[in-house]
Amino acid sequence: MSNSSPRPLNPPYRVLMGPGPSNIHPRVQQAMAAPLLGHLDPYFTNVMDDTVTLLRALFRTENRLTFPISGTGSAGMEAGFCNFLEPGDIAVIGVNGLFGERMVDNAQRCGAEVVPVTSEWGRIIDPEAIEEALKSQKRVKLLALVHAETSTGALQPLAEASRLAKQYEALFLVDTVTSLGGHEVAVDDWGIDICYSGTQKCISCPPGLAPFTANPKALATLEARTRKVQSWYLDLSLLSSYWATGRFYHHTAPICMVYALYEALRIITEEGLEARIERHLRNGLALHHGLEAMGLTLHAQEGHRLNVLTTVRIPPGIDDLKIRQGLLNEFSIEIGGGLGPLKGKIWRIGLMGHSSTEANVLLILYALEKLLAKEGYPIEPGAGTTAASKALEEK
Amino acid sequence: MSNSSPRPLNPPYRVLMGPGPSNIHPRVQQAMAAPLLGHLDPYFTNVMDDTVTLLRALFRTENRLTFPISGTGSAGMEAGFCNFLEPGDIAVIGVNGLFGERMVDNAQRCGAEVVPVTSEWGRIIDPEAIEEALKSQKRVKLLALVHAETSTGALQPLAEASRLAKQYEALFLVDTVTSLGGHEVAVDDWGIDICYSGTQKCISCPPGLAPFTANPKALATLEARTRKVQSWYLDLSLLSSYWATGRFYHHTAPICMVYALYEALRIITEEGLEARIERHLRNGLALHHGLEAMGLTLHAQEGHRLNVLTTVRIPPGIDDLKIRQGLLNEFSIEIGGGLGPLKGKIWRIGLMGHSSTEANVLLILYALEKLLAKEGYPIEPGAGTTAASKALEEK
Repeated sequence: MSNSSPRPLNPPYRVLMGPGPSNIHPRVQQAMAAPLLGHLDPYFTNVMDDTVTLLRALFRTENRLTFPISGTGSAGMEAGFCNFLEPGDIAVIGVNGLFGERMVDNAQRCGAEVVPVTSEWGRIIDPEAIEEALKSQKRVKLLALVHAETSTGALQPLAEASRLAKQYEALFLVDTVTSLGGHEVAVDDWGIDICYSGTQKCISCPPGLAPFTANPKALATLEARTRKVQSWYLDLSLLSSYWATGRFYHHTAPICMVYALYEALRIITEEGLEARIERHLRNGLALHHGLEAMGLTLHAQEGHRLNVLTTVRIPPGIDDLKIRQGLLNEFSIEIGGGLGPLKGKIWRIGLMGHSSTEANVLLILYALEKLLAKEGYPIEPGAGTTAASKALEEK
Repeated sequence: MSNSSPRPLNPPYRVLMGPGPSNIHPRVQQAMAAPLLGHLDPYFTNVMDDTVTLLRALFRTENRLTFPISGTGSAGMEAGFCNFLEPGDIAVIGVNGLFGERMVDNAQRCGAEVVPVTSEWGRIIDPEAIEEALKSQKRVKLLALVHAETSTGALQPLAEASRLAKQYEALFLVDTVTSLGGHEVAVDDWGIDICYSGTQKCISCPPGLAPFTANPKALATLEARTRKVQSWYLDLSLLSSYWATGRFYHHTAPICMVYALYEALRIITEEGLEARIERHLRNGLALHHGLEAMGLTLHAQEGHRLNVLTTVRIPPGIDDLKIRQGLLNEFSIEIGGGLGPLKGKIWRIGLMGHSSTEANVLLILYALEKLLAKEGYPIEPGAGTTAASKALEEK
């Protein structure tokens, strides 16, 4: 190994308006650089306790088992499935986007039999179809839905599904990776048994942790397992002996990421959860108005659109990559492209957490207008920003 | 949720001399606070490439599949087992400490049959016993050893084991969580097929990533699997399509942790790997001399002691916790206690990465002397620091 070191780290500043990560508050950046502690240091275990208290408030739950899993949102998903499913169990899973598909893959890797309830990418899962699936099986162990489908921009209603899960005695698992901290999520009031999220969306913390919560009903299922959880790293009974019921060493917690999450949760507390959700609503609606005023078509089903992530169809004749590269190179804005069947067909524009600002609503509309006009897309100058400004004033 | 936010983060500065995390260089702290990017941003994908290049140099390997797994060292361990073992496979695993035991647990959760090769905690695994275990089975899929047993302070020789793995056509897996960056590790020269580490030990980066490498022979086994890897999050074929063979989205990489690792690897490059290993050797030996000069007994087998983590027996009549709390409260030093059968019997003193300094060698000896003398332990004032200084001068 030579003593010449490769170039120093010097990342450009980006306006992060994709499907996550979102921009983070400078206080969160600073928190990561706080003095490093051991994972059993008394000061750190206090930070753990306070983080758990704040996470409970965010999830709106009293669940004792509430803590961040040491991996990204996808590790949270895997923990949600591998702890509660055993080979031969039946899981009913809503599939209307990439993350529903990923849930199916996870459940199958646990040896479970999956009954998918599908819908077009961008539309919600119909509660009647969920009931049909539940009815078709002798005993369903788990019903799983994605609250906010990051790949399509659709917001799944949960009330009826929760009622059905109870009626058919299935555990109710909900993925809130993209909704938590931006849309209303109420784990206890909504009867959610297992819920996980990610830090890098509406919580505005860097990626690396998956907030997780499970209620006593779910834990009873865990205790009744006939075999060990197939993942040692994500085994909730081992994890909770470090996070919830004692301080038994399991793995070395990602200390700096927990610092960052703690600071991000403090910022959420200071803003107030209701005010924060209201901010996401206001900015999201303004973006929707602005895009429609530009003659663009929103992709997700009307009445079920996310405020934190907007999907918009790419107009015919417009080159997906060219526009996204223009945004990146000329405006330093990141947005997301489509995934799976929506690749090349939609853009995904995030307004999450610290990125959900009036300034960003106006910026992205202005930038898109400039770039689309350059490509010959017929557009009335200022149409988008004018409509968005009006919507912002009205709210 | 009320608008009053809990107390600001204000961790004390600790001298981290436990089994990890070690202290990190201020440059690594700063790196985490660099502007956040998306996980597909062209600047970030360049950082990924450069990180992989530096990791290859550290592992001393040409393996294309070399990258950090998005979890702590334990996630690296799980990835090492769940990708290569299928139900019914036979694994021979060296067990002479907590991490050997954890390997057994991991392998069993993959449905593998484990043939343990045991040794007392603190002693190395005997190559003859390894051969006996390999010989006793019709076909062994994998031989796994912990290079540096963090729970005992023993350094496992690998040459003979590597030869045996080849002879019996088993994959050779080595855990280098505590050795990489502090002791010599040479993946290719030593014939290691699968190797993982952790960032928070001798690499001196915060916990949260597990550097991982696997050679083409291991990958051929992966490709020949008859069923999917049971973990979606740790599935190497999916991970390598993001890290190694393309930029296909798998999960959102923990961007800031990758920044930190990149900076820590740059620092290693600047120091030079050989010089770094020499530094760990020099400081480790000085600590050994100092502790022995204080009349204390080193726990790990002579000739096979780690330089980066020293285990020392707690003298009779001395209260484990009282001394460790004295170190923490009076000197702000963290050291580790014993685990499993060694609980209350040994202390574990780390000199890893940025924490491996002459100053820390002298500090811990001075502090231990003060605290032990207070407890009535017979000690000649300055015995430890004098012996250590002499050893440092001689080197």
